[in-house]
Amino acid sequence: MRILIVGASGHVGSAAAAALQSKHDIVAVSRSTDPAINLLDPQSISAVFERLGRFDAVISAFGSAPFKPAPELTPDDLTAAFTGKVLSQLNLLRIGLDFVNDGGSFTLTTGILSREPIPTGAAAAMANGAVESFVRSAAGELPRGIRLNAVSPTVLASATGYHDAFPGFEPVSDERLGLAFVRSVEGIVSGRTYTVD
Amino acid sequence: MRILIVGASGHVGSAAAAALQSKHDIVAVSRSTDPAINLLDPQSISAVFERLGRFDAVISAFGSAPFKPAPELTPDDLTAAFTGKVLSQLNLLRIGLDFVNDGGSFTLTTGILSREPIPTGAAAAMANGAVESFVRSAAGELPRGIRLNAVSPTVLASATGYHDAFPGFEPVSDERLGLAFVRSVEGIVSGRTYTVD
Repeated sequence: MRILIVGASGHVGSAAAAALQSKHDIVAVSRSTDPAINLLDPQSISAVFERLGRFDAVISAFGSAPFKPAPELTPDDLTAAFTGKVLSQLNLLRIGLDFVNDGGSFTLTTGILSREPIPTGAAAAMANGAVESFVRSAAGELPRGIRLNAVSPTVLASATGYHDAFPGFEPVSDERLGLAFVRSVEGIVSGRTYTVD
Repeated sequence: MRILIVGASGHVGSAAAAALQSKHDIVAVSRSTDPAINLLDPQSISAVFERLGRFDAVISAFGSAPFKPAPELTPDDLTAAFTGKVLSQLNLLRIGLDFVNDGGSFTLTTGILSREPIPTGAAAAMANGAVESFVRSAAGELPRGIRLNAVSPTVLASATGYHDAFPGFEPVSDERLGLAFVRSVEGIVSGRTYTVD
């Protein structure tokens, strides 16, 4: 398959690419590639697809959200989480739909915070929960047999900078995370969030 | 207890009020009461609390989202769902926190679409999932023993106008829905979504 990975330079995108590259043709894009992609900018998404053409699978490993104690989250913080982690990935789905082949797939990335709290994680939790429920609901309405899933990992062993923020959470390997993307891309399931923890 | 119900004129708010009114002092506000409240307008929320004073429990039965097939949802549609159903209710929590007594509670309203798809329901699903994951995460960071839950009903028997949109879903009575609000308000649980289906 020809697979587009958005955010391939990050921990999650790298793990997805490593797991899929032996069997597939991977095209990796990020904010710093040529062409560059910014999921907050619909025009940059259109430009990437127009230049790179059609794919069998699209993977998003993109998302950011502010971290603050819940009572301190302002409307701007919540909106930033929605824009950075939900609207961004759904922009990729909406615009990319016309460039994905029949029977292809989209795989978005969420994270364990939708189901397991950590201090200051409520905005990210909100965004992850939003994407996971969207995926469950929207999957049945996509055209041409195109599937839609999410992958929701706990903290990664390779992302050591985050370990202190997840006290007592058992980090998972890039290899285990990569398997979830393989299941989503090569499987037949749609509407599912693959948890990795 | 003294309980504020926002959106008490709707199906969900009415069910909550009916279940709680025999044991509690209910103050019902909506867009058409005096004082009026609009959860999209933080100033109207502050004004309501400054005029009505302190509460032991706050219930939100507020929320709206556009209904369209998932591939047709625009960024504006998704933002409207986020604003109308997520940011609105979290505005009430953020501003109301200072007006809720120690050991009090907030109960927000979501709905079955976060876990069960219907046609055109993806934006509402996204918003419901966002609120439910926020509630799970934020509950542990609220001050003074204040609890936070959500109630997530399926279609109501009393809301006959929605029955066709939920084919095969078994409607629930206002009485069963009301019990979930009683459990949230009078119980000791926090961070929970009470499903009613």
